Amino acid sequence: MRLTSLLGFIAGALTTVSFIPQVLHAWRSKRCDDLSWAMLLTFSAGVVLWLVYGIRLWAMPVIVANAVTLVLLLIIMALKTRYASR
Amino acid sequence: MRLTSLLGFIAGALTTVSFIPQVLHAWRSKRCDDLSWAMLLTFSAGVVLWLVYGIRLWAMPVIVANAVTLVLLLIIMALKTRYASR
Repeated sequence: MRLTSLLGFIAGALTTVSFIPQVLHAWRSKRCDDLSWAMLLTFSAGVVLWLVYGIRLWAMPVIVANAVTLVLLLIIMALKTRYASR
Repeated sequence: MRLTSLLGFIAGALTTVSFIPQVLHAWRSKRCDDLSWAMLLTFSAGVVLWLVYGIRLWAMPVIVANAVTLVLLLIIMALKTRYASR
């Protein structure tokens, strides 16, 4: 069971930090056209619900992982909006 | 607690189905350049670990959501590889 929990923590960390290289990629290339708005908005809605879920259970790993993911998604959406006009 | 579980189910469904519009977007535009390989690979590694986690706990919602997400990610990565040469 301890290994299973560890797996969950690593899994959550990976899916969260994965958005860091996406932010850097967008920042460097000044392009986000190939990221679908429907994906970004649907995924963000899911992350917000995960955050509410985590807060209701006061499950800190769920809260932290989803709060960080949400911030990274907001940055990506801000960059997409900014670069769209170019 | 019932509402909390429902929140979790809807959250999981949203983060999983969000990749469907991304697949359609890539398919229609024939472009995936703005999706970072580091994001796709790191996120996929996380999803694989979530899948192993779900299998170890035999938690069907975790297994199904992550299996579907992994299939969609593999499609996106296949399209990115295919369109890269254009």
